[in-house]
Amino acid sequence: MTKVVSPAQSAAALTELWSPRIIGEVDDAYLKVAKVQGSLVWHSHEAEDELFLVLKGHLRIELEAGVVELDEGELFVVPKGVRHNPVAEQECHLLLIERKSTLHTGGVVTEKTRTLAEQLRPL
Amino acid sequence: MTKVVSPAQSAAALTELWSPRIIGEVDDAYLKVAKVQGSLVWHSHEAEDELFLVLKGHLRIELEAGVVELDEGELFVVPKGVRHNPVAEQECHLLLIERKSTLHTGGVVTEKTRTLAEQLRPL
Repeated sequence: MTKVVSPAQSAAALTELWSPRIIGEVDDAYLKVAKVQGSLVWHSHEAEDELFLVLKGHLRIELEAGVVELDEGELFVVPKGVRHNPVAEQECHLLLIERKSTLHTGGVVTEKTRTLAEQLRPL
Repeated sequence: MTKVVSPAQSAAALTELWSPRIIGEVDDAYLKVAKVQGSLVWHSHEAEDELFLVLKGHLRIELEAGVVELDEGELFVVPKGVRHNPVAEQECHLLLIERKSTLHTGGVVTEKTRTLAEQLRPL
């Protein structure tokens, strides 16, 4: 990636919920934006950490050890192997940083699961 | 890292210019915040990309191929091997994402260069 990106503007331009789009890369990680509302699904990524940064709104990340509440501008890294479920009561815009090998919903597949090809579609 | 972090608040708390502090990690990368004003130094990272996200203010990244101007909320990834020099006319707060192996000013050492130990000091 050699262009200037506004993650907030990219996320705002999304029209589909829970459908991350790749806006760049840094080394072996993708930068993604997502627009979410409701609940995704409990899953984990066995080999990859996952960074959530809230661009707009509020995100709750349910973990087996408790709940993390993220306001706008705050970030949290879900460690590899930790089961989690992101939940947003209201529309929430996210910047995600994930290794390129990361599967959207880990080993779980639901109707919300997006493939890498889908995440690579232009905004 | 298993705690909620506000990069903007962390950066605002810094008291020293051009002295990045590590606020977390995701896989083999560190998350850092920095408060900058003035010019750092021309350098490159031969094996690592470097992500700059402006939390506050405006950053200019001088590259041999041209100049990148970043407003608040915008990000840019300097590709590995590309010589660059960050410059801020006014105080600017940054979130940086860099591989753990990344040296602050690459193969160049100046009085502004900070070691990993210095970047690991608590805020």
